[in-house]
Amino acid sequence: MEKNVLLTIGYDGTGFSGWQRQPGRRTVQGELEAVLSHLCRQEIQLNGTSRTDAGVHALGQRASFSGNFGIPVKRIKKAANNLLCGGQNSRLRCADIVITEVKEVPMEFHARFDAKGKTYRYVILNRQEPDIFRRNYCYQVERKLDKEAMRKAAAEIIGTHDFACFQSAGGNPRQTTVRTVTRLDITESADDEIVMEITGDGFLYNMVRIIAGTLVEVGSGMRSATEMPEIIQSADRRRAGHTAPPGGLYLKEVYYGDSVGKF
Amino acid sequence: MEKNVLLTIGYDGTGFSGWQRQPGRRTVQGELEAVLSHLCRQEIQLNGTSRTDAGVHALGQRASFSGNFGIPVKRIKKAANNLLCGGQNSRLRCADIVITEVKEVPMEFHARFDAKGKTYRYVILNRQEPDIFRRNYCYQVERKLDKEAMRKAAAEIIGTHDFACFQSAGGNPRQTTVRTVTRLDITESADDEIVMEITGDGFLYNMVRIIAGTLVEVGSGMRSATEMPEIIQSADRRRAGHTAPPGGLYLKEVYYGDSVGKF
Repeated sequence: MEKNVLLTIGYDGTGFSGWQRQPGRRTVQGELEAVLSHLCRQEIQLNGTSRTDAGVHALGQRASFSGNFGIPVKRIKKAANNLLCGGQNSRLRCADIVITEVKEVPMEFHARFDAKGKTYRYVILNRQEPDIFRRNYCYQVERKLDKEAMRKAAAEIIGTHDFACFQSAGGNPRQTTVRTVTRLDITESADDEIVMEITGDGFLYNMVRIIAGTLVEVGSGMRSATEMPEIIQSADRRRAGHTAPPGGLYLKEVYYGDSVGKF
Repeated sequence: MEKNVLLTIGYDGTGFSGWQRQPGRRTVQGELEAVLSHLCRQEIQLNGTSRTDAGVHALGQRASFSGNFGIPVKRIKKAANNLLCGGQNSRLRCADIVITEVKEVPMEFHARFDAKGKTYRYVILNRQEPDIFRRNYCYQVERKLDKEAMRKAAAEIIGTHDFACFQSAGGNPRQTTVRTVTRLDITESADDEIVMEITGDGFLYNMVRIIAGTLVEVGSGMRSATEMPEIIQSADRRRAGHTAPPGGLYLKEVYYGDSVGKF
């Protein structure tokens, strides 16, 4: 009997050329498909929700696959994680990908097309001294950032807008550049971290990193929060700020309909 | 005029085959010597205090070098860190080595031979779920550890003993295996971390990792704290516990005489 399976996946993006399978490169999709194909004894193709770039991390990426395979769904998580760690089930090694949840879903479910929204996290380390242990996990900004100015600018981004100004060239063609951002929080955490969390119904190519770069420029006084409506209205990528580096970005959560997850 | 220079160095050991220079391998000493030789326009040889193994980290490694070079000592830190980051002085990249302090010391000073003591930190992640982002920075132990039992065992280690039982084969030959441990603290930090800090006048090969492995076995109930004096007295490596993995270990601080740092 054919089954359709949805995975929740975390990964440290540092050692990967991004999510998407590419010949001769280590990618998250490529590693997972190799392991799942071995377990299912057939060629498995994963539909990932978000094609994260090289260096981008995930706490809750989702991907689905279907097939007529023998392994019980409830055995996949442990078996796949074991193979991802090199098959030794060793306490001394831990892989840079982990499957945190596996569940069977209706045959018509598709991890990407059925996603109703996502939350991304972007982590800024706001201090002068670099932290060598977090160099791949945050964006270090030396100049003290004005969080209140960043929050004011963030408030202008929330809502339904044409976000063409926050889109890099090079992504897949989109029918429309209109998206709805329902939440954009700027919080301070321990150790000089500033964490931006953004929830929306969809994101354009590099949108979160360009928003992060633009908010950093607002926070450092290079531009004013009051410019934001104008930047958005211009629909001009050159009016927005720089693209913040990939290591600060985390795909945190993907939302589906009621049957699989709430939005 | 010849100068003698002492560096304080932090590094993420993940991407290195340890401290010591080895042909064809990326090592901390090798990277630093290349950068310093370039800046000083002569072959620089570093004397490191501790030859940390592959995967072991440092917060405060020390190393000294001498020579008759033109670059002012106060310019070395910034210039070397810039070169370590690939010479771009870019805010977007951070190296996995950082020089945190540079100072001129008397010509007779030697970073290794003059060290009066060191503190190492060992970080245990005591929880069931792996943390992919910390997999190279701590030792994950799934079984809930009894910190009180670990502290009792630690108290038996403090003092002057023949620590041959905590020495791996393969290190440099030592005149004596007697060392003095002046402090061994077990603290709990946020996020299910157990942090062991050990200070002593010197450490045998793998001594800190074997002590960490032995304390983990005590904490998990596999052996009792009361066995410790017997294990030490046996001077037998096979009586002690396993060697905990390198990623949990950090060289935290090196102590010199009053002129360079207190013990």
